[in-house]
Amino acid sequence: MSFHSMWAELLPVGRSSASGGYRRHAWTGADADCRTWFQEQAEARGLTYETDRNGNQWAWLGDPAAGNAVVTGSHLDSVPDGGAFDGPLGVVSAFAALDELRGRGARFTKPLGIVNFGDEEGARFGLACVGSRLTSGALTVEQAHRLTDGDGVTLPQAMESAGYDPGTLGPDPERLARIGAFVELHVEQGRALDLSGDRIGIASAIWPHGRWRFDFRGEANHAGTTRLADRHDPMLPYAETVLAARREAELAGAVATFGKIGVEPNGVNAIPSLVRGWLDSRAADQASLDTVVTGVEKAARGYAAAHGVDLDVVRESFTPVVEFDHALRDELGRILGKETELRVPVLGTGAGHDAGILSDRIPTAMLFVRNPTGVSHSPAEYAAEDDCVAGVNALADVLEGLACT
Amino acid sequence: MSFHSMWAELLPVGRSSASGGYRRHAWTGADADCRTWFQEQAEARGLTYETDRNGNQWAWLGDPAAGNAVVTGSHLDSVPDGGAFDGPLGVVSAFAALDELRGRGARFTKPLGIVNFGDEEGARFGLACVGSRLTSGALTVEQAHRLTDGDGVTLPQAMESAGYDPGTLGPDPERLARIGAFVELHVEQGRALDLSGDRIGIASAIWPHGRWRFDFRGEANHAGTTRLADRHDPMLPYAETVLAARREAELAGAVATFGKIGVEPNGVNAIPSLVRGWLDSRAADQASLDTVVTGVEKAARGYAAAHGVDLDVVRESFTPVVEFDHALRDELGRILGKETELRVPVLGTGAGHDAGILSDRIPTAMLFVRNPTGVSHSPAEYAAEDDCVAGVNALADVLEGLACT
Repeated sequence: MSFHSMWAELLPVGRSSASGGYRRHAWTGADADCRTWFQEQAEARGLTYETDRNGNQWAWLGDPAAGNAVVTGSHLDSVPDGGAFDGPLGVVSAFAALDELRGRGARFTKPLGIVNFGDEEGARFGLACVGSRLTSGALTVEQAHRLTDGDGVTLPQAMESAGYDPGTLGPDPERLARIGAFVELHVEQGRALDLSGDRIGIASAIWPHGRWRFDFRGEANHAGTTRLADRHDPMLPYAETVLAARREAELAGAVATFGKIGVEPNGVNAIPSLVRGWLDSRAADQASLDTVVTGVEKAARGYAAAHGVDLDVVRESFTPVVEFDHALRDELGRILGKETELRVPVLGTGAGHDAGILSDRIPTAMLFVRNPTGVSHSPAEYAAEDDCVAGVNALADVLEGLACT
Repeated sequence: MSFHSMWAELLPVGRSSASGGYRRHAWTGADADCRTWFQEQAEARGLTYETDRNGNQWAWLGDPAAGNAVVTGSHLDSVPDGGAFDGPLGVVSAFAALDELRGRGARFTKPLGIVNFGDEEGARFGLACVGSRLTSGALTVEQAHRLTDGDGVTLPQAMESAGYDPGTLGPDPERLARIGAFVELHVEQGRALDLSGDRIGIASAIWPHGRWRFDFRGEANHAGTTRLADRHDPMLPYAETVLAARREAELAGAVATFGKIGVEPNGVNAIPSLVRGWLDSRAADQASLDTVVTGVEKAARGYAAAHGVDLDVVRESFTPVVEFDHALRDELGRILGKETELRVPVLGTGAGHDAGILSDRIPTAMLFVRNPTGVSHSPAEYAAEDDCVAGVNALADVLEGLACT
């Protein structure tokens, strides 16, 4: 089955007709359809199919027990109203690269694995990369049991409804010990390749990033009758803080975003009692990120005080910089420099990935495919088909260089 | 039953133990409990109880068909997490004032009505004063049928579930023709009486006010990987517009509030595609209100354009200035000036009321009771019990002056 046919088969799964975006959230019906598709692709190629103790799907050519396996893949789930490429491009390209290598008559000297990690986006339970975090031990079973979706369904309950046994959740060091290299192909979520005019890139590092919750607590009151001077309106310091975050990020060459907000009571004629905003910030290095977040928090405290509003700032998550394995990264550069006519730049990224989670357990690397608009996590996310095919060929070259004689 | 006992009886109905605020939304269980209470109070006093074609509750002393009736009352529903006083104070005071007049041995020469208007706050269906608007014809049956709550339940469906026949909805000119005067007592929703040191005030006018929806449409994108320069983030012009509204209101001596917001997709790691903010603005006169809203909209268009974000501004509702009937207002002043030792200032208000809706059909007036903090639409809304009792006595004086020999 060609890249094009596989892609077309996945395209309608979990797509909202209203938004045109994808809602393939962990352990839902759309997720199950994606998983069935994965298993069918594995079996159609005569690969050994299995799910691991954390619900991640694996397809094996050769016996992984032999060790030093080369694994590729990504995830099939999506953010709310996400695009078609973030995740699925890496899984479809993995199967297509295997087909390409078989077409070349490649002889494998190491086991080859294709993986679909569960719940990478964290759209349902609020934590990203749950499948790879559990496997690596970065998320404990106790922490996983406390994950709850917006309807109060726990992660174990959701897995059970989807036909998986949550009793097996936990770290899987034996599995990781059999893997010599993990290479994840992903659509670029930015315009670096477009701006440099290249189809394919190699990841250098994932920027350190974190999420901070800013709770501005004022005093609910009637919007029509409360004099401006008597107000403690938390929307005002929130608005000033949004603008401060933009300024601080510009100064530091970083990014900062207030994309999620919760307001109480959220009535047209009510001054809010609470405005809760979430800051997402990332930078190329830790010092720059610290500068941004410290600056935003300091500004916010000043704004809140000026309006007689209380402010709590809580760091909800933080991930330090992830440097991908330098030896593996250099080997990818050598392979692609030799095998292809492409220039393959090395670039950092602000997005988290399963490859980042696994990088402190096993050697990992990432390939990026050009995104002409840079748009991601949106129905408008896009990559041209000839760039996707270039991605498949580059991945095939890499797997051949790593796993074949 | 004393004011104090009636008040204590209503106090637990529809109160959230989490917030301490009230959730007495139209046609819910809490609303039904309030309505049962009203009927019981009417029957305990030997009044004739009825509901009208729009679900408003009435209790009559004497036969309203005689005409030239004097009516008092307010509403029992609340905003989300509202206070105990906004609405119920006027209904409880109405029954207490009747008890006071009976205690005085007053002889009624005109029918006296006590009313509870349905769905004054509009918390459930988004439109305020639905009961009085339907009765006056300010809201058509077709418009009422299109009202839908957050769960997709229509107003007729909600009324039917509550045991009312929505088939009778419509204007009720015969009922209004029988009313010679409507006097609504209400807790002040501001600090004018507190600042002037008076217990009771008479309303002069309701400020013109309106609601405008600002839809900022940008481009959803990944918060970690999209360069600041490539963003079309609608949160930024929204934040600038919030601050512009405050500035414009200050300059014009008006009020302006962004208290409700809707964000899509509202994800921590997603630049929003849409930020929808609602502006509530009111001013003492039409020209000042126009200045504020025109200024905010112009500023918002500039901010949106600077960020490459589209902006639609929709006026969702507008109510021109409401001048209460001057003859009735002056009569209240004469009665209270003669009968009490209180100074009774005349003051404007930024809040809408059923009395405002009815004022272009029948002579209406309002009494305000001091609010020491000015806080309203909040669990912290408060009036001292001796001020409430002063309000009952003032209302009794007014009813005696208007309806007794």
